[in-house]
Amino acid sequence: MPPVQDLRELLERLGLDALYITKPQNVRYLSGFPHPEDAEVLLTEEGAFLLTDPRYPEAERESRLPAKVLKREEKAALLSGLRGRVGFEAAHLPYARLMALREMAPVEWVPTEGAIEALRLKKAPEEVEAIRRAQALAERAFHHALTLLKPGVRERDVALEIEYFLKKEGAEGAAFPPIVASGVRGALPHAGASEKALEGGELVTLDLGARVAGYASDMTRTVALGQVDGPLKEAFFAVLEALESALELIKPGVEAKAVDARAREVLKARGLDRYFVHSLGHGVGLEVHEAPALSPYSGQGPGPHLGLVLEPGMVVTVEPGVYLPGVGGVRIEELVLVTEGGIELLSTLPRGWQAL
Amino acid sequence: MPPVQDLRELLERLGLDALYITKPQNVRYLSGFPHPEDAEVLLTEEGAFLLTDPRYPEAERESRLPAKVLKREEKAALLSGLRGRVGFEAAHLPYARLMALREMAPVEWVPTEGAIEALRLKKAPEEVEAIRRAQALAERAFHHALTLLKPGVRERDVALEIEYFLKKEGAEGAAFPPIVASGVRGALPHAGASEKALEGGELVTLDLGARVAGYASDMTRTVALGQVDGPLKEAFFAVLEALESALELIKPGVEAKAVDARAREVLKARGLDRYFVHSLGHGVGLEVHEAPALSPYSGQGPGPHLGLVLEPGMVVTVEPGVYLPGVGGVRIEELVLVTEGGIELLSTLPRGWQAL
Ligand SMILES: [Mn+2]
Ligand SMILES: [Mn+2]
Repeated sequence: MPPVQDLRELLERLGLDALYITKPQNVRYLSGFPHPEDAEVLLTEEGAFLLTDPRYPEAERESRLPAKVLKREEKAALLSGLRGRVGFEAAHLPYARLMALREMAPVEWVPTEGAIEALRLKKAPEEVEAIRRAQALAERAFHHALTLLKPGVRERDVALEIEYFLKKEGAEGAAFPPIVASGVRGALPHAGASEKALEGGELVTLDLGARVAGYASDMTRTVALGQVDGPLKEAFFAVLEALESALELIKPGVEAKAVDARAREVLKARGLDRYFVHSLGHGVGLEVHEAPALSPYSGQGPGPHLGLVLEPGMVVTVEPGVYLPGVGGVRIEELVLVTEGGIELLSTLPRGWQAL
Repeated sequence: MPPVQDLRELLERLGLDALYITKPQNVRYLSGFPHPEDAEVLLTEEGAFLLTDPRYPEAERESRLPAKVLKREEKAALLSGLRGRVGFEAAHLPYARLMALREMAPVEWVPTEGAIEALRLKKAPEEVEAIRRAQALAERAFHHALTLLKPGVRERDVALEIEYFLKKEGAEGAAFPPIVASGVRGALPHAGASEKALEGGELVTLDLGARVAGYASDMTRTVALGQVDGPLKEAFFAVLEALESALELIKPGVEAKAVDARAREVLKARGLDRYFVHSLGHGVGLEVHEAPALSPYSGQGPGPHLGLVLEPGMVVTVEPGVYLPGVGGVRIEELVLVTEGGIELLSTLPRGWQAL
C-alpha cells in the first residue's frame, strides 16, 4: 500500500478531485481487503477509504483503509457529495456502472487508465515476501508433481494434484490453472491440461503458480519422460541459452523490450526464433500478468505504457519457448526480482535438462 | 443455443442492425466455445459468428457457430464494415473497450441489457441435462464430505476435499468455492470456509455446486455434529417448513416474488423472518446466480427485469435460511426445474434433520 502522500500526488498529477477505484486488484492493493470484487476505494484529497456493503460487517477490521459499510442508498448519498473532476478506471468499469455513477453523482467523470497499476510496478518488501512465499509453495508442488509423471497418467490428473497440494499446504489457491502439456501438446503455449495421458519419450511442460496473501507466483519447467533426443532436445538447450542471456541483461535502466530482443537473437542464431510465438515475460504481483511487459510490442498498441524501462523492485518472469507444431515444445520460465545490481532469482529450481 | 430465427427476431425487437456480445456466459451460450472470455459473438441479419484470436486455431471445431480466428487488425477491419445501430452489453463492456469499438466502427453503438440473458431464462433439455449431471456430482461430493465431518477438522479442509472430489470425478470444477460454515460462523450467509475447526454440538452448513459443460449446480444442507437442541434446532424445522411451503407454490404463472413471500410468511409465524436476510432463490445455469430472482425486490431496482413470472424450463434454487447472530445458522437449498405441472426436484438428497 502506497503512502497517503503518494495518493495525493496522484490526484494532483491527474488533475482530479477524486478517483473511484473499482478494479479488484487495485482495491486489494490499496486496502488489503480480501473481498475486493465487492468493494471500491474512493480516493479524495481528504484521504482514501474503502466502500463495501452489509455482507461484510467486519470490513473495518479486514481493511488497512478506513472502511464504510453502506447500503445502496447510503452509498448513493455519499457519492452525491462528490464535486469537481472524478476519475474512474476506464479499462475495468462497465458502461452501465458508469451511467449509474453519473446519475448518483453529476460530476465530471474522467476516464483514467493505469493510474494505480503504475504504483504497483515496483513491489514493496512485503509484496516481494508474499511472492516469495507463493513461489516456495509452487516449487514444493513442482517436486510433488515430478513424482506423478509416469506414462499413462493424464495431464489433468497431474494438474489437479498440483492444485490440491497448493491449497492443502496453505496457498489461497493456484495462481492460474496449472499447465501440463505433454508431447505434441507442448507445441500449444496456452494448452491447459487435457485428458491426454503422458507417454514415454515425451517432453512435459509444467507451468504453475501459487497465490499467497493475494500475490501470485509463476514458473515453468520442461522435463523429459524417458529418452528424448533430436529437435526437441536441441530446442531445450536453445531455450536455456536464450533464458540465461536474457537474465544476464536485466538490470535497472534497461529497456524491457531489449531483454525480449536478446532472447529472440539467441533463438534466431539457431533458426528457432519463428517458433517463439509469445512475449519473453511479464510482471507478476496481484495479477499473474501485469506490467511491465518484456515484449517486442512494449510501448506500442492501446492502453497505458507502464514499465518500459526496468527499475529495482519490479518482479518479472523470463520465459522463452520454442513450439514446433505437430512435434512438441519447450518453455523454461524463471521469476526474478530486479535489484539495484541486477536480479535476484525468486525461482530456485535447477533449470538444466532433466530426464525422469 | 437458440435457433437462428430467434436471434433475428431479437435484433428486430431491439431495433438493431447488429449485436456485439462480449459477456463470457452469453458467448458460451450462443457458441458453446469453451474459452468465451477470449471471444465475442457478432450477431447480424446474416447470422451469428464467433470471433476469437490466433491463440485458438481450433475455434471452428470447438464452436457451434461459424468461427473467425482474427488478428487484431483483421478484427478491426471486420468491425469497420458494420453499419447502422449496433448493440453492446452495457453491464459487461468496460468503457475503454467501448471507446476502442467506436474508433474501429463509427456506427451508432447502442447500450443493451439482458438481451441474451432473457433467452437463457428457459433451459433447453440439453441444458437441464448438464445441470442434472452437475447436481449428481455435487451430491456424491456431499456424501463424501459427510464422512469427513468430525470435531477438529477445519472448515477449509472439508471445502478443499469437496473441490478435489468434484474435479477428480470429472467436473470442470466447483461452481463456486464451497461454503462450509460451522457453529457461530453459520450465522454468516456468505461465510466461505475458514480455518475454524468443527466442534461437537455444532450445526454445519454445506453449500456446494459443480460445473459440467459450463453449467452450474447449487444446493445446501445443514447437519448437526453430535447433539444440537434449542433455538437452532427450532430454526431448522422452521426453515424446512418455509422451504416446503415455497416448493408447493412453484408452478408456471406464479410471480417469483410470491414464492419468496410464502417462505417469509412461514418464518414470520415463528418470529424468525427478520433473521432471513437474503432472497429466497435465484436462477441457475451458465451462471450460479442468474435470473429469475425469487426475491422481495424482484422487478425493482436498476437493471433488466427478467423472470418476474415463473415459466416451464426455468431452473431455480429455493433456499430459505435463518441466521442468529453470535449463535449460528441454518440454510436448506433445493434445486428445482419448473415444469408444466409444478416442479421437478433436481436435488435428490434427503432434507430432514440429520445428526452425525
Ligand atoms: Mn508466465
Ligand atoms: Mn444458492
